[in-house]
Amino acid sequence: MSLNTFGHLFRVTTWGESHGPALGATVDGCPPGVTLDEGMLQHWLDKRRPGQNKHTTQRQEPDRVRILSGTYEGVTTGTPIQLMIENTDQRSKDYSEIAQTFRPGHADITYHMKYGLRDPRGGGRSSARETAARVAAGGVARAALTSLAPALEIKGYMTRMGEMAIDRNAFDWDAIDANPFWIPQGPEIAAAWESYLGGIRKERNSVGGEIEVVARHAPGGLGAPVYGKLDTDLAAAMMSINAVKGVEIGEGMAAARLQGTENADEIFMGNDGQPVFSSNHAGGILGGISTGQDIVVRFAVKPTSSILTPRRSIRIDGTPTEVVTKGRHDPCVGIRAVPVGEAMMACVILDHLLLHRGQMGETRGRIG
Amino acid sequence: MSLNTFGHLFRVTTWGESHGPALGATVDGCPPGVTLDEGMLQHWLDKRRPGQNKHTTQRQEPDRVRILSGTYEGVTTGTPIQLMIENTDQRSKDYSEIAQTFRPGHADITYHMKYGLRDPRGGGRSSARETAARVAAGGVARAALTSLAPALEIKGYMTRMGEMAIDRNAFDWDAIDANPFWIPQGPEIAAAWESYLGGIRKERNSVGGEIEVVARHAPGGLGAPVYGKLDTDLAAAMMSINAVKGVEIGEGMAAARLQGTENADEIFMGNDGQPVFSSNHAGGILGGISTGQDIVVRFAVKPTSSILTPRRSIRIDGTPTEVVTKGRHDPCVGIRAVPVGEAMMACVILDHLLLHRGQMGETRGRIG
Amino acid sequence: MSLNTFGHLFRVTTWGESHGPALGATVDGCPPGVTLDEGMLQHWLDKRRPGQNKHTTQRQEPDRVRILSGTYEGVTTGTPIQLMIENTDQRSKDYSEIAQTFRPGHADITYHMKYGLRDPRGGGRSSARETAARVAAGGVARAALTSLAPALEIKGYMTRMGEMAIDRNAFDWDAIDANPFWIPQGPEIAAAWESYLGGIRKERNSVGGEIEVVARHAPGGLGAPVYGKLDTDLAAAMMSINAVKGVEIGEGMAAARLQGTENADEIFMGNDGQPVFSSNHAGGILGGISTGQDIVVRFAVKPTSSILTPRRSIRIDGTPTEVVTKGRHDPCVGIRAVPVGEAMMACVILDHLLLHRGQMGETRGRIG
Amino acid sequence: MSLNTFGHLFRVTTWGESHGPALGATVDGCPPGVTLDEGMLQHWLDKRRPGQNKHTTQRQEPDRVRILSGTYEGVTTGTPIQLMIENTDQRSKDYSEIAQTFRPGHADITYHMKYGLRDPRGGGRSSARETAARVAAGGVARAALTSLAPALEIKGYMTRMGEMAIDRNAFDWDAIDANPFWIPQGPEIAAAWESYLGGIRKERNSVGGEIEVVARHAPGGLGAPVYGKLDTDLAAAMMSINAVKGVEIGEGMAAARLQGTENADEIFMGNDGQPVFSSNHAGGILGGISTGQDIVVRFAVKPTSSILTPRRSIRIDGTPTEVVTKGRHDPCVGIRAVPVGEAMMACVILDHLLLHRGQMGETRGRIG
Repeated sequence: MSLNTFGHLFRVTTWGESHGPALGATVDGCPPGVTLDEGMLQHWLDKRRPGQNKHTTQRQEPDRVRILSGTYEGVTTGTPIQLMIENTDQRSKDYSEIAQTFRPGHADITYHMKYGLRDPRGGGRSSARETAARVAAGGVARAALTSLAPALEIKGYMTRMGEMAIDRNAFDWDAIDANPFWIPQGPEIAAAWESYLGGIRKERNSVGGEIEVVARHAPGGLGAPVYGKLDTDLAAAMMSINAVKGVEIGEGMAAARLQGTENADEIFMGNDGQPVFSSNHAGGILGGISTGQDIVVRFAVKPTSSILTPRRSIRIDGTPTEVVTKGRHDPCVGIRAVPVGEAMMACVILDHLLLHRGQMGETRGRIG
Repeated sequence: MSLNTFGHLFRVTTWGESHGPALGATVDGCPPGVTLDEGMLQHWLDKRRPGQNKHTTQRQEPDRVRILSGTYEGVTTGTPIQLMIENTDQRSKDYSEIAQTFRPGHADITYHMKYGLRDPRGGGRSSARETAARVAAGGVARAALTSLAPALEIKGYMTRMGEMAIDRNAFDWDAIDANPFWIPQGPEIAAAWESYLGGIRKERNSVGGEIEVVARHAPGGLGAPVYGKLDTDLAAAMMSINAVKGVEIGEGMAAARLQGTENADEIFMGNDGQPVFSSNHAGGILGGISTGQDIVVRFAVKPTSSILTPRRSIRIDGTPTEVVTKGRHDPCVGIRAVPVGEAMMACVILDHLLLHRGQMGETRGRIG
Repeated sequence: MSLNTFGHLFRVTTWGESHGPALGATVDGCPPGVTLDEGMLQHWLDKRRPGQNKHTTQRQEPDRVRILSGTYEGVTTGTPIQLMIENTDQRSKDYSEIAQTFRPGHADITYHMKYGLRDPRGGGRSSARETAARVAAGGVARAALTSLAPALEIKGYMTRMGEMAIDRNAFDWDAIDANPFWIPQGPEIAAAWESYLGGIRKERNSVGGEIEVVARHAPGGLGAPVYGKLDTDLAAAMMSINAVKGVEIGEGMAAARLQGTENADEIFMGNDGQPVFSSNHAGGILGGISTGQDIVVRFAVKPTSSILTPRRSIRIDGTPTEVVTKGRHDPCVGIRAVPVGEAMMACVILDHLLLHRGQMGETRGRIG
Repeated sequence: MSLNTFGHLFRVTTWGESHGPALGATVDGCPPGVTLDEGMLQHWLDKRRPGQNKHTTQRQEPDRVRILSGTYEGVTTGTPIQLMIENTDQRSKDYSEIAQTFRPGHADITYHMKYGLRDPRGGGRSSARETAARVAAGGVARAALTSLAPALEIKGYMTRMGEMAIDRNAFDWDAIDANPFWIPQGPEIAAAWESYLGGIRKERNSVGGEIEVVARHAPGGLGAPVYGKLDTDLAAAMMSINAVKGVEIGEGMAAARLQGTENADEIFMGNDGQPVFSSNHAGGILGGISTGQDIVVRFAVKPTSSILTPRRSIRIDGTPTEVVTKGRHDPCVGIRAVPVGEAMMACVILDHLLLHRGQMGETRGRIG
């Protein structure tokens, strides 16, 4: 049923609540023989870690990941890999009021509708903290991809934050890691974004964000039509991230505005005997299968619902109330969604690489 | 693995190629005791059927569905329901040239990359004809929903076709079935769309489309966080439809532009003891679980790649060629995607209704 | 959920009732490029077909299988293969009495308990006729195995029928196809079995059977511990066949009687650089993974419940009745279970071959 | 793919190696609202724990289970439950010789064949220690069953150990917990078993065992034909336990010896309006669905392969060697398989209870 599991052959089950003893990911299906240690995973977790700058929640979690199984002498054995992150910053506080109230825009009310009870501490299972486990699992996927698809590069970046949008004409791949928003833009633009977000925070408000994740040098032929299509699985992967409300492949929603002459990526023969395309409206996927072009996924994250501005709501007993969410919350959760989106991309591509091997005989199609 | 299967408990496996002897859907997990006959399914297939007007392909398929198993005396028995649609309009023609050429924007090249061979007749498995099986399966889901969620109403409509977009201030639910585009607008606007599409066709071109599907009176509490979320499954369902490039829930991609104060749907207690919301930015889903509001999904369909304007491409041997796709093709496949989107919505909601029962004890949360 | 589906990557969904219009199997995950036509499947169906001699039901079904999808020009394309067998011998008769009565030893009462209704015609879905679809699917698996594991040979035979048991000292592999019981014994023994079964039939009785299926020259390394073990999947495969009540691997239940010194198969290095074993108590599987020895599975089939001797039972309304099952029934369904067991073995081994590719990197362990 | 996962809706993924930092089970799909604490799980783990008497390995593990997620204030929330058992008794020793040698009858050689490498410490993932995680998960299932099927009672006991077999005429349900073999027999017989096993140990040998697990007062109607049958899932569950070589339902393999008149359980109407049966050859399951009778499963465990008597084998480099397995090993692993079999039965029954709810509408069949 896979209700807390993602993937076909590379299967990630995340578990844990925001303020329980620990959370983590059970990773099944990593190939044997992959070099893997905790430091490699920690690298990606540190990228997602809160409290790094004033734009993300000030919760100070070291987010230290431990590998409890599935490796021997620093190499994967093919058995399940258990990744555990202990929750060390569980502030003891009184949750009795929060437990009685539904915060607008949160999953409080729907978890209550569904389960009849919920863990109110920090949002419980519905907390964005669950994505730490995804990032850890994504680190395992990246480690496996190192040998299975050595040329592959996966990178995420913000393309929009409220009124701020990137200028694609000034796209700078190398700038992405040099600013706190992971935008592919120079420092002046990053400064403008910083100023904008500062304003949002001062207004006790929050703002949405749009993230693009690209896989460069991805193999062609990945995807299992028609319900395990590569784009289908990417859409599911991204939509399963907290607060995501939309997913696009290539042109995305704008495809509805295009004409056929504009949209079709024409095909040529490249010098290396591989097909090349005149453009990439398709986002690297045709018929649910990768073309060998860049795989381009975009998703939108809604503004953080936890804001300091009062919102009207009700209590469990149906009585009206007002909610002001105090505490440590990101004014734009979209920022920290960047490494999460990368992790999901890594998991999906590894999964489909393995799946492709399982579906095929030795050879696949050759062109030219 | 579910590579040609969709769903958790209500599982739909589609099979068949565009020009093979038949295609269909194996539907497993329909509850027993549901009244079902071929006429009920035919109703929905007729809505999707090509050749109904000049805006859809002129292929004349009666698309007659047969129920081969799973019912007895007009009632489902709980066993797999096999739905078969015979392909009666398989024009015998020479596919040798098509088999050697990759049509830009089609899955020809990726199926070849993946499998090393493909069925070239009418696109084989990658043809939009596969969606007929989805519509038939959706008919089964609708039949089951009649008793399990009697108030539920699922309706799709176009919201955009190239430059034409609906006016939400003039939204007319009752007009949807009265025009060939299923737009919620009056006849003058439908006429304008018709004229626009006529122009596209004359220019030997095609155009994309945007479809919105709404489930009204859907139960709250549906969705299985965190990887079987209702929105995750809806995103996968819609993205798995041919030519879909983007999926949105509620505000969708526009959420990236909003501030927290704008986006949060405030909560009140309704007169009937159920919560009501001041707005529905969330599209009826919070934390992956339905709120009881309208469930709103939108998706974009790219313009038909099969156009009469020549496009540059290559052959299997790598030599350059030009492709003009003659034959019967919709200038806007988005139109026929409307009943397909409805069918997927019906399948997902039924699946989650059953899943919810399987996950729960007797009672769920009460408010007030 | 896979409730009517079997397999991980090679997935077989059977559908259909004994007396509906048709039954069949949806086969997903067959690799592309496999030579496959209806004649190849018919070969195995003819082996299972009833009415061939007086020891099997006299129902005269041609059991003609059609391939409706998944092949092009006689070769698999990697898309779902739909196999359909039309039910041509649906005798029109009055099922109203059968529909009201529970036949002892049949699934009548449990289908009623579970579903609240059932298809009473010939046992509906619970009929042994469902196994025809398995045999057809097994034929697809065999076709794929021809190239993936060319040396592999799968063979089933009876080892017991009531009081008759084979003499393992006179085991004759080549005799299996030369007698109606598929016993590995000479014609005199086959004649004795024939005489024994004739006596059972005259007494208006039936008898159980034990079947052994062996895969010779199976690759080592197949199996996905710890819940997708090769023996786990074989046990499930065999137990899912109608009327099966026990499954054994290698020593099977007798392992409970053995001491460690007796049971351990000692290991040596063979001349071809592959390990050889002093014995095969393990049945070719250690820790859920194949050793490269013969894979040996045994299962027991209960005596046909449909007998001409009256048995006491009740009606749906709870009133007592007596049941005599007239009609065409095998005195020993175990005989026809032989090709079914072979088919399940073929499906499981192909599935695990594909799975192994999906789990692994390029190389696996070498010894010596 | 579920390669380390078991179950449809109640899904148990075990993870961990014998001598890694920890092992455990990720339990997804437990209904919300179930009272659960660590003490409840510890109760069952203590039953399986080694070192309790001289018949089980002297490894002294407290096997302390921790619940890391999925509960709040002592009640399940419907989210994944992570159960962790830390390995505290990891004796540091030199595994370099063991790592180079294949112990006969162990999974050493097949893990090497499959994965090309293995964790040699205590058998790694293939150790019987993995079953501790199953027992913990079974404790969760039992907790959920307390409210969902209050009358249900699950009990396992040995029926054979080498030459010793129970006398069914002296079957004493109440004696099961009063002896170290969990045999349903009085103290004299238990003493005889003890003496027998003492002899086996002195001979530096081991012996197999047969375990029967019975579910009394199980609901009728459980099972999802035809590949999620209750007996299919029970067979898979038991066969997946280490060292199990055979599984039987009801009559089991002996069904091959019976005639139809002997085997059919006749049906009567009970005083309470439920059907009763004259006998239970079927083991409580017909057509893969429970009848409401006792569900009876039996399985055989091979003798421990780790014995002090030398066995011939080879090293990874192919050279011959002799293996004597020193260390702490049970002379009959079948004894500790009793609580494991109970745990698997609990998991399968809970899973099918939930599944049944998911498959059905409100009502099921009534008789009388």
